[in-house]
Amino acid sequence: MYLGTAYAGSQIQKNGITIQEHLDKALKRLFAGAKVKTIFAGRTDSGVHALGQAVSVLVDRQIQPNKVLKALNSLLPLDIRVSEARYAKPEFNPRYDAARREYLYNIYYGRAPALYLQDKVWHIDARQKLNWRLMRRAARLLRGEHDCAAFCAAGSAVKNKVRRVTASEITARRIYRWPGAKNKADGLLLTYKIQADGFLYHMVRNIVAALVDVGLKKMTLRDLREIMRSGQRSKLRSATAPAAGLVLYDVKYGKEKL
Amino acid sequence: MYLGTAYAGSQIQKNGITIQEHLDKALKRLFAGAKVKTIFAGRTDSGVHALGQAVSVLVDRQIQPNKVLKALNSLLPLDIRVSEARYAKPEFNPRYDAARREYLYNIYYGRAPALYLQDKVWHIDARQKLNWRLMRRAARLLRGEHDCAAFCAAGSAVKNKVRRVTASEITARRIYRWPGAKNKADGLLLTYKIQADGFLYHMVRNIVAALVDVGLKKMTLRDLREIMRSGQRSKLRSATAPAAGLVLYDVKYGKEKL
Repeated sequence: MYLGTAYAGSQIQKNGITIQEHLDKALKRLFAGAKVKTIFAGRTDSGVHALGQAVSVLVDRQIQPNKVLKALNSLLPLDIRVSEARYAKPEFNPRYDAARREYLYNIYYGRAPALYLQDKVWHIDARQKLNWRLMRRAARLLRGEHDCAAFCAAGSAVKNKVRRVTASEITARRIYRWPGAKNKADGLLLTYKIQADGFLYHMVRNIVAALVDVGLKKMTLRDLREIMRSGQRSKLRSATAPAAGLVLYDVKYGKEKL
Repeated sequence: MYLGTAYAGSQIQKNGITIQEHLDKALKRLFAGAKVKTIFAGRTDSGVHALGQAVSVLVDRQIQPNKVLKALNSLLPLDIRVSEARYAKPEFNPRYDAARREYLYNIYYGRAPALYLQDKVWHIDARQKLNWRLMRRAARLLRGEHDCAAFCAAGSAVKNKVRRVTASEITARRIYRWPGAKNKADGLLLTYKIQADGFLYHMVRNIVAALVDVGLKKMTLRDLREIMRSGQRSKLRSATAPAAGLVLYDVKYGKEKL
């Protein structure tokens, strides 16, 4: 699990420090120079967080998983933590073997910003009227098997954009100004949960942007249905929702895969 | 209100960027070079947060408070926000006129760290047995008027260390792994609330350290009572609790003061 705020995303790249870079470096220290290969279940963008990220580590040496867990956590920065380590079959690929992934996206809807949630939510100012019950209805439209092309970042090379969305729902609850400050509720936390067999590039953030536009009445449910049917990203006028609200929450594997 | 994580405390000093420095700079830009004097209700250390900090601004020009509020928030960094602005009497001093201050201190007691609360709590690993009910009893001992010298940082020049503690209590609740992640409770948030007519340097963090030592059974309730009675900082063996858990929550003024 990690906070994505300080990083240029999960995968190694030239534009900045990434989660994978830290992990590989820690593994290389732990396995004293051995060749190490890591594969991530999901690629997360700069600023995006993960709680349930799964990573496979291929290395030509054996150390008890429990020792690996402890050693890695002592070598990694505090905003990157390993919560579990175990053996997998050599052919296990956390990316291609994933049966379902689940993301959460949090929106804080209130006047003053919830300071402790900075970089973890999309703050929408309560002076704008956001009808979250309408958003909830819009979220339900996403359920089922669809061509999700309208929500895929332009320029993606992926051919088949049909995805099976097994959960798509919004919950709302009052939250406090600060953890433990019970008496001063000052806004709503809107949590969008989406689970699917696969995701396209920027898919969750584009869906969230569309849901918010429905909530702000810039778009009707009918418009949204039409855009989905069209399969054209250009029809969706909403800007991609900010990275900060997004968290890769869980990756599920079939029993035979592990 | 502000997140103290990135700052060397509230008051201007040479060792780093402070809240006051940002505020004064923003005020100087807003009042185009006018002389500006700010007084804070409470001094917060490096890493300590504030929601209810009160600051008086003395300036020889008049602008509507509402405009000041908006302008300041556009000039300040995102982790420093002004939540209210209004006129005060010229003789108002937010520090000396404060009738009561209230602090919260948050402890996260769980196995895995609650990543989204990083820098906002003291994480105590659940492998250590922490009896929070005992801590709650210890917290009650602080109520009333006492010489608080045993909790005051050594070397303080303050003579009178008697303070009237009007609230001192601990609440506990299960919290989630991530905001909006309802089904995966993974620890306890212990919130200590203390309200008094005044605080000594490091007083809250020293009290919290003592309460935790009671919870860990390194100290009995009787020991704590004895230490309080002694008025000697040297008798309290606990290390000062980390700054990250502390937040200046509220400052209260009598009606005639505003």
